[in-house]
Order: sequence, then C-alpha cells, then structure tokens
Amino acid sequence: MMNELRTPAGAAGTASATRDRTLPTFYERLDDAMRSCESLLCVGLDPHPRETVDPIADHCRRIIDATVEFAVAYKPNSAFFEASGPDGLATLAAVIAHVPDDRIVILDAKRGDIGSTARAYASAAFDMLGADAITVNPYLGDDAVLPFIENPVRGAFVLCHTSNPGAMSFQHLVVNGWPLYMEVAGRAITWNETCNVGLVLGATYPESLAAVRGIAPTLPFLVPGVGAQGGDLAAAVAAGIDDNGRGLLISSSRGIFFADDPGSSARTLRDAINKARESEIR
Amino acid sequence: MMNELRTPAGAAGTASATRDRTLPTFYERLDDAMRSCESLLCVGLDPHPRETVDPIADHCRRIIDATVEFAVAYKPNSAFFEASGPDGLATLAAVIAHVPDDRIVILDAKRGDIGSTARAYASAAFDMLGADAITVNPYLGDDAVLPFIENPVRGAFVLCHTSNPGAMSFQHLVVNGWPLYMEVAGRAITWNETCNVGLVLGATYPESLAAVRGIAPTLPFLVPGVGAQGGDLAAAVAAGIDDNGRGLLISSSRGIFFADDPGSSARTLRDAINKARESEIR
Repeated sequence: MMNELRTPAGAAGTASATRDRTLPTFYERLDDAMRSCESLLCVGLDPHPRETVDPIADHCRRIIDATVEFAVAYKPNSAFFEASGPDGLATLAAVIAHVPDDRIVILDAKRGDIGSTARAYASAAFDMLGADAITVNPYLGDDAVLPFIENPVRGAFVLCHTSNPGAMSFQHLVVNGWPLYMEVAGRAITWNETCNVGLVLGATYPESLAAVRGIAPTLPFLVPGVGAQGGDLAAAVAAGIDDNGRGLLISSSRGIFFADDPGSSARTLRDAINKARESEIR
Repeated sequence: MMNELRTPAGAAGTASATRDRTLPTFYERLDDAMRSCESLLCVGLDPHPRETVDPIADHCRRIIDATVEFAVAYKPNSAFFEASGPDGLATLAAVIAHVPDDRIVILDAKRGDIGSTARAYASAAFDMLGADAITVNPYLGDDAVLPFIENPVRGAFVLCHTSNPGAMSFQHLVVNGWPLYMEVAGRAITWNETCNVGLVLGATYPESLAAVRGIAPTLPFLVPGVGAQGGDLAAAVAAGIDDNGRGLLISSSRGIFFADDPGSSARTLRDAINKARESEIR
C-alpha cells in the first residue's frame, strides 16, 4: 500500500540525494503553508487508548475537519496508533491521507537507528504513511539522522530539548562548555544542507528555546508543551519566533483533540499565537 | 488483537508496578534461558526490503526453525516490518508468536517518548506484539524509560554505546568527567529496581564495553555489531561477560538471516561464543 494522495510527484523516493529543483524544499513548503494559513498552530492527533474516541479514525477526521481553517500542521502520534496493532497503522495512514495537501503532516515517531534501518523507518513514514516530516532522536548520531533528510521535500525535526521533566536527565549535561541540547542544535545546523532540518523544543523551557534560536536563526522549531504540560505561550513565541515572524509550530494535543468544540479551541489558540507574534514583530 | 501465545499468565498488564512474586523477573527468565540453551546467541530478524526473502513471514519462520537449537534470543527489527505498513505489523506479530516460549524476544524498536506515549509504545511491544523486551533510547530521560520497565517480567535494553560510526557524535562527549554513554549506564543502574534493565553496547567498541561492565557488573548487555559491522567476537566476549560467564547476548543479523545454511551459521557462531566464554572463565 502506497499512500499516493499526499506524495508530491517525483518525491516518492527517499534514497536519492539528488534534488529536483522544480520541487520546493521542506522549508519552502512549510513557510508557504504558514503564510497562506496565517497560522503557526499544529494540532496533535493523540488518540489515548483510555479516552473514548471510538472509532479513532472517525474522531481524527472530525478533528481535522473542524480545525483545518486554523491549523497549518497536524502531528499524529505514532505510539497511540501502533498500540492498536496492524489496524491502528491502517488507521494512521487513513488519518494522514485525510489532511489536505496544503497542510503539513509531521509524524511524531521519535525514530532513530543506524543506516539501513533508519532508511526503512524513513520509508515507512514518508512512502508508506505519506507524512511530510518526522520527529527524530539524535542519540545515535549522524548516520541515524541523515537517512531521514535525504529527500529535501521531506523534513526531520530533531529532538533537541524536550518538554518533559526527564529532559533534565541528559539534555542539560554540560558538554564542550554548553548543554547537550545546544550541542545537538549545533550538529543539526551542520546536517541542514537542503533546508529540511528542524528542531523539537518544549514550550516548558523558554530560556532553552531562546538560547537555541540564538545559534539557529533559520531552523523551524516544533514546540509542544503549551496547554496541559503548562508551557507559557507568550514566552514560547517570544523565545522561538524567527526574523520573519514565523519559524515555529506551536503544537497542542489534548487541549484540542479532546475539546468539546475542537474548532473553537483551535481558533482561540491560533489567535493567541498570532497576537503573541504581533507583539513581538512590533 | 492480543498476542496471547507469548504472554505469561498475569503478565499482560504493563501499567502496574506491583510485582507478582510467583512470576520470574526478566533477568531470571533470561538467565534461565541462557543456561538451558547453553547459548548467548541472539539472532536478528532484519528483512531488508532490497533482499528477496518473500514472503517475509515464511522466511523468518524458517530462520527461527533452523536456528532455535542454537539461539537463546531473537531480535526482530521493527523498522523493516513497519516499512511494509499494516501488513508488515501483522507479519511481525506472527513472527514473534512463532518463537518458542522458552526463548527471549527482544523487539528492536529503539523507542523513547514521554509518559503516556511511552506507555502506549510499551503496550504495543509487550501486549500487542508479545515481545519479552524492547530496545529503548535514553535521550528523553527518566520518564521516557520507566514506562517500559514497570512490569518486572518484561525488559528494556537501553541504548548506551551503539555499534555505528555515528556513536561518536554524542555518546563520547564528556559529561561529569566521563563519556555520555557511561553517564547513561550509570543512570540505567538506578532505573533497575526490579531486575529488568539491560544495555545495548556495540561489539565494535570493546573498550567501551569493558568500561561499562566495570560499573555495571550485573546488567545484561545486548551486543550487536559482530559480523558485517566488523566487531571482534573474542574481544567483545572478554569485555562483556559477567562473573557467571553469561550476562550478554551476542546478536548477529545479516550473517545468519541471509546465510545459505542459517542453522549451520548459527551453530558456528554459538560455538565460537562459547569457546570465547570458556577461555575467559578458565
């Protein structure tokens, strides 16, 4: 099963580093979508098994339909689909196929493995499921990340500073005179040869977000942690916005996915993000 | 779909930290299996899409049947099954179900995510697919690992020093006066409250293997990298063996999975591992 709905012509292969310059890079696609939607909102699709949102596929489609006017991106969380086995993976493909082509789908899978295995994960995410981008874990190093960014049309958001309390365990350890998450950001900049590398930075650590923006002025940031996890929206936007007033995706999952009126919740958050942007741009 | 074939009675739940003391811990199960098989061999099940091993399920079953006399564990690589979509995940479940109950199945998935998401990955690996253990990425910290080890019957092998060249990118950075992989090992020791935490250490870095064994005398090591990746078997065994002459699983994938005579290849490697053990024990 190939997901052809969301596969731009000529972009199916992930193994070729040759760039077809008639196709936009991931950055161009993301920036175009942000500008045309006038939104930096990313809606997380996290069908927790304990919640009663049966059937999952219908609920996800309803969320997408209700929020598509306000969201530039969707972030399905692979784990909650995998927990339903093969049927869950089929549901995930169907949900991704339901997202319009002019929105961005980021598969939140946090993959990372060596060489040919990373290539198989990239193929699963991009060719099989039709995602535009994937979240990637950097611990295994260069050769665990590069297979995900061989195709400039597809993007990878590298875990840099995550939103959870456990982020302190290793990401704040000092290496080479700065925290490990800064070292990861520095390395990600060197990986970004074809404008398709982004970073994951939790809204719960706005000072870290600002520090990374200081060394990575043009990389897009995927920012979870606003809402249920307690991140301060205005602080995150102020810390993460780029010189164009874009460059970040504020991701909300539970606050929209389980809302009584998901469209209203999405509009409210989109508007709050844009208000915070405007006060920064001014 | 629940995989009941490989689920010991009372062990289905992953969310309870209460230990049923009538059930063996993961360490006890692993050590029992090593002793009864007189083998430290783990056979990797890596159906690379470019190889012609169609259909994958049949090939994996043939490999298991041909090697079960010589192997104590099997390590299916999730990526190569995921790359075939929902059908691939069904194949993975069927392949795991084919492994006898007295052998250990380690799902090589390198998962890592926060709280409820990690719990969903654990449910997918243990309850849905029926694996006994999973490989886990430590970058997100404590709360990304703990959900995988809540059930003492199930194990997690934490990535410590991987076998790839990119392992140098971050794992060798000095933190707190020693390399990051040593810090990860130290943290894994503290996580190991119910005898079910192991470490992944590549055979390609025997000095690192020995250093970690020096601080973690009782943790089991999963050791890939012998064979195609060039790791020296005798050096890896000498560096990784525990005081009982066990405590490590030497994993071979391509050298057995694509061999003309997989049984013979498995026997040869099992015997070579045991010879290296004996010269260490003497």
